[in-house]
Parts: sequence; structure tokens; C-alpha cells
Amino acid sequence: MSGTGPQFVFRPIGVIRSGHTEAARTPIQPAFAEGCLGRAEILPEFAEGLRDVEGFSHLYLIFVLDRAGPANLVLKPFMQNVERGVFATRAPRRPNPIGLSIVRLVRREGSVLHLDGVDMLDGTPLLDIKPYTAKFDRIETTRNGWQDDVDPEEARRLGRRGYTGPAMQARAD
Amino acid sequence: MSGTGPQFVFRPIGVIRSGHTEAARTPIQPAFAEGCLGRAEILPEFAEGLRDVEGFSHLYLIFVLDRAGPANLVLKPFMQNVERGVFATRAPRRPNPIGLSIVRLVRREGSVLHLDGVDMLDGTPLLDIKPYTAKFDRIETTRNGWQDDVDPEEARRLGRRGYTGPAMQARAD
Repeated sequence: MSGTGPQFVFRPIGVIRSGHTEAARTPIQPAFAEGCLGRAEILPEFAEGLRDVEGFSHLYLIFVLDRAGPANLVLKPFMQNVERGVFATRAPRRPNPIGLSIVRLVRREGSVLHLDGVDMLDGTPLLDIKPYTAKFDRIETTRNGWQDDVDPEEARRLGRRGYTGPAMQARAD
Repeated sequence: MSGTGPQFVFRPIGVIRSGHTEAARTPIQPAFAEGCLGRAEILPEFAEGLRDVEGFSHLYLIFVLDRAGPANLVLKPFMQNVERGVFATRAPRRPNPIGLSIVRLVRREGSVLHLDGVDMLDGTPLLDIKPYTAKFDRIETTRNGWQDDVDPEEARRLGRRGYTGPAMQARAD
């Protein structure tokens, strides 16, 4: 978006495999993607970095929203018909199209992580994995802005979008 | 680290201002940085994207660990004298040096976010801001791998590192 200033170059450590091939039919958050199975396939040169990851039940995935389209600074979030600043939303069309999802690690098989709660499109480039750690990441008391006004049942119904089955599989499973 | 494959270029949306100028004296996580005040100064061209962010008490900051040094795939985390894969740790020397911190938003003043729990070095390039949203981000039951073996009191003592005061200020405050 900005053509000036410093730039930082990142290369994928792997790729996400999922059953989601259309953005409009992909759950908007892992919380609405329970049962959506998928995989993170880590490149061989980074596989050693996965040691001990299986001790954690949940992982942060940081990835590139590579099919998100140009950024919108102000937009109506999927859940609400009111314009919000992009940094007050999790919408994918961001100045830096970086995605963040907390997925459940089902099991590790060598350099492949089998995951539940996958809300990423198939083929999404993965940049980093960090262990979800309750003492750092579970904030007990929060104000959640406009999200607190969204009806939880409606959120769940809308947020799943095309996904209805209990155990959608990654395509190559 | 890998010289091949696709690459993605990101440009900062702003900069972090904090009282931390030495990595070795910077708290290792926001959980150990309570009282460390700082700011996210957003570039004017992205300021509109901050609308409504003040409704959220906590924000994810995604930033570049720009002074972290070369990646280590296996390392002894700060809290434990046992080698772990980097993706099972929050250590800064990662294949893609991307940092993730949950900070408390004290207040917004135009394009400046005043923050508590700042564990980033002064001058850190900021890539993205996402609202911490309890229904997506507060995972109630987790296994936390080797982190569950770390003594909480020792973690708190070590994790704060050089920081001892109750209200360290960003340098230019």
C-alpha cells in the first residue's frame, strides 16, 4: 500500500492444506471451523524446528492471506453491517495481508502437522508457528469492542459459511 | 534462510516506541512486562484503519524482530535449559523473524496507541494490529508442552529481566 519506507521479505516455511478452496465458503475463524481438518506441511529444511511442538494442544499459525485482494482501511466486518477500521477487525484485506489463527494440533507426523479448526484456504503460505501458551495468551478479562455486540448464535451460524459437515477433510487426506 | 521459493514483501504500518533499548534487558513476554508503557505510532496513511480499535482492551501486535540475529532451528529457550525446536518456543531467532505480543490498549490519541505490557525494543517495525477477541483467542483448556514444567514464580522473576520498576515509560513520553 505504501511505496516507501523499509521493507521486509519473508519466505514460507511450509504450506497449509485444507478442504477450503473458495474464500466465500471458508469459515472466518477457527472458532467456527471445529471439525475442519487440515495440515501444515513444513519444508524439509525447517522440520527440525518442530521438535517438541506436539506437547502443545494449540498453535498459532501466522500465514500470508495471499488471495485477499487489496487492502481496505475501513470496511464492514463479516459479522456486522457497520463500518470499522481494519485494525479493529480480523478481515483479510489488510495493509500487510498477514493472517493469525489458533488451531488445535491433532498430531505430528514428521514434518506434517495434522490440525483441527483450519480456516485457511488450501495452499496458504505459512510463515511461522508459535505455541499457544495459556500463561501468555489466555487473557481473562477483556473488552471486545463491537464483537461484544454480535449475537453468539448468529455468529456461529454465519461464521461457518459454506462449512456444514462435522469432519471436512483436507483434499489429499 | 531458504533462498528459493516464493517471497512476500511487507512494509511497516508504524513503529513501536518503548523504554527497551537492549534485548537482554527486555521482558520476554507481555505477561512479564506489566507496567512497561510504550506506544504504537501508526503512519498517517494507515491511521483511518484504527477507527473503533479503542473498544478493545487488548490487541495483538505483529511486528518484525528486526534485531534478533540469524535463525536457530533448535535452541534452549530462555526459561529452560533443554533444547527445543524453535516452533515450540517464542524465541526471537526464527526462520521468519515475526513477533506476536498481546498488549493492553491504555488509550488512543489519534494515530498513536498508548500501550501497557510492551516487550518490544524501541524502534521495532510494526506490521499489523488485530483486536484480541475472547471468543476467538481465549482457549480454555490447553496443554502447554514444556512451558507447563516452568515454575511460575521463577518464570516471572527471570522473564522480567532488566525491568524492575512499576511504570517504565517510553523514552519520549
